[in-house]
Amino acid sequence: MTARVLLFDVFGTLVDWRSSLTDLAAAAGTRAGVQADWPALIDDWRFAYQPAMDQVIGGSQPWQDLDVLQARTLDGVLAERGVGLPDDARAALIRGWRQLRPWPDSAEGLEMLRTRYITATLSNGHVALLADLMKFADLRMDVLLSAQFSASYKPSPEAYLTALRLLECPVGEAGMVAAHAGDLRAAAALGIRPMFVSRPLEWGPVMREECPTELPGLVVADSLPALAEQLGC
Amino acid sequence: MTARVLLFDVFGTLVDWRSSLTDLAAAAGTRAGVQADWPALIDDWRFAYQPAMDQVIGGSQPWQDLDVLQARTLDGVLAERGVGLPDDARAALIRGWRQLRPWPDSAEGLEMLRTRYITATLSNGHVALLADLMKFADLRMDVLLSAQFSASYKPSPEAYLTALRLLECPVGEAGMVAAHAGDLRAAAALGIRPMFVSRPLEWGPVMREECPTELPGLVVADSLPALAEQLGC
Repeated sequence: MTARVLLFDVFGTLVDWRSSLTDLAAAAGTRAGVQADWPALIDDWRFAYQPAMDQVIGGSQPWQDLDVLQARTLDGVLAERGVGLPDDARAALIRGWRQLRPWPDSAEGLEMLRTRYITATLSNGHVALLADLMKFADLRMDVLLSAQFSASYKPSPEAYLTALRLLECPVGEAGMVAAHAGDLRAAAALGIRPMFVSRPLEWGPVMREECPTELPGLVVADSLPALAEQLGC
Repeated sequence: MTARVLLFDVFGTLVDWRSSLTDLAAAAGTRAGVQADWPALIDDWRFAYQPAMDQVIGGSQPWQDLDVLQARTLDGVLAERGVGLPDDARAALIRGWRQLRPWPDSAEGLEMLRTRYITATLSNGHVALLADLMKFADLRMDVLLSAQFSASYKPSPEAYLTALRLLECPVGEAGMVAAHAGDLRAAAALGIRPMFVSRPLEWGPVMREECPTELPGLVVADSLPALAEQLGC
């Protein structure tokens, strides 16, 4: 393939949000003397995430960064489950999105891929969050790009197109690497090559992300080093 | 010091534009069968650079990326010196700003500094140019930021403040690393800590950048590793 730039989804594709946030929530709960079903609460929170972004994409809410959105949805989830968490514990959870553990192969795969490609995040996390997260997870990119630069969120076309405009990269010379079918479908609809990396543990032991097998030109790999090998790195 | 983020000037501070562009111009001239005083022409071109940006800062020209500005000033310099260069040679020179050799200590110093700080470019080069240049020079940053995000150019205050806003960094927690007094004075006026790295060969054997010794809290180093050591990395 003739790709020059690879865009990477971050949450779930490079880092394991679910186990990281569950641990952080349990620790915050212990400090606050609060008990709850933390894995279920984190799942609820994660499910509330895309609808909150969809309101921004749809125009019914102005763009605000992920911290603001997450604070709002976290309050909703806590209220629904009747869990009272003090302010500092809530802040620690929102901050937790900057302290997510990488998947074991992420660092190695990114280093391999950057030998042939310009690697760039394209995350719904804003730049400040990404900078902290990449440092925490010890992951390195050539460029940190975010849907923030389009004042929208994925899967809005503007999120992808703004990132590629900033890199002066035509859609035909870009790949989108993600563990999520929705992200890849949106990218592929614009002419960006979809690259699916399976992360079977992202949603815990029960649920599993589907692979968008119908997409023409789809690349499928079960790790980032495997993707790098397929791409000739 | 309590800095969390270091912003880096690029042209002259991390890479040696003068010798790199002189070599590229001489090679392009040879290919085109054109003779000229290439070092002098490159110096003229470089001197035309800040005035072109000042027109954008002053509002008499809309923001355009550095390629566009450089193409315009290059045409002016070539006309003034009566040097005729074919289009592909002119394009190669403009592209040359993405093929500048790093100073010998740049890579090592950046690696040392990123152990304690978030490292970010703050260049007048746009993001696409910086991505290509950093790849060419084999230099790595945590974040590539550019005056482009403020639709202005340094030393406009907005260039610095936009970069720090993107990183959620108060001015008091940021340092500006540059080989140029003007850049550091502008940063220091906003409360950013000025860090001067001397690059005695930047302007060739004759001219030398002054050190802005009047700035309170100024850090002075003769290389990036020396700066890292001063900062306790």
